[in-house]
Amino acid sequence: MEQRISLITLGVSDLPRAVAFYTALGWKPDNDWEGQDVAFFQGTGTVIALWHRDELAKDSVVEDSGGWGGVTPAYNTRDRAAVDSVIEEARAAGAVIGREPAPTTWGGYSAIFIDPDGHPWEVAHNPHWTITEDGRTRI
Amino acid sequence: MEQRISLITLGVSDLPRAVAFYTALGWKPDNDWEGQDVAFFQGTGTVIALWHRDELAKDSVVEDSGGWGGVTPAYNTRDRAAVDSVIEEARAAGAVIGREPAPTTWGGYSAIFIDPDGHPWEVAHNPHWTITEDGRTRI
Repeated sequence: MEQRISLITLGVSDLPRAVAFYTALGWKPDNDWEGQDVAFFQGTGTVIALWHRDELAKDSVVEDSGGWGGVTPAYNTRDRAAVDSVIEEARAAGAVIGREPAPTTWGGYSAIFIDPDGHPWEVAHNPHWTITEDGRTRI
Repeated sequence: MEQRISLITLGVSDLPRAVAFYTALGWKPDNDWEGQDVAFFQGTGTVIALWHRDELAKDSVVEDSGGWGGVTPAYNTRDRAAVDSVIEEARAAGAVIGREPAPTTWGGYSAIFIDPDGHPWEVAHNPHWTITEDGRTRI
């Protein structure tokens, strides 16, 4: 198994609402999401999908415990100011801000927003990591 | 917010066990995971982390419902045969195979393995998508 992740799917209860939320953050589905009933966003190497949570649970062969289940995605910014601006975009789009931007114990700066389906995203500036011009995160 | 994911963190209950599992699949931590108490794996653009689930819940400002929570990662292979071989690697490493490799309704071929912490991974060959030489998944 190569050391990489191809796709991460976030289960949602209302697909148009979820697509509207991520569109408000500046994303754009790369497929006919209404026709295909799943939205795919071409990320840098890894694709992000929004799909019905009940179908995802069935497809993943798991019981859905209904809340958060031990997986958190993160978006790393190119500078500290972008943490603030992404959090303001998320707030304006209707996200709950779980944690306002603040310095971290590891020398970075981070915040948490929670999307309309309860999925937390960490938004962080990590001065020890690099974001390449084309958007890859390098340790 | 740029259309990308920087990092995905999987919460685990036993970090050495989790590192051993992913190492058995051919991965290798890119940091001093024992010293830092978190393991980072440099993926293609997106980093994968293993961290203590209780700390991740606290950091993510969420209640942990204890099971699966609506997020499933996927590993897309370059050909159909690799789905079978990755599933055999996962089985040998102690994973539960949630779904054995089989053709899908969307023209692909996929399976599910479940890691020692209950995180499902879809392993799929999608003939409509491309895996670049350097490991990026292209819609």
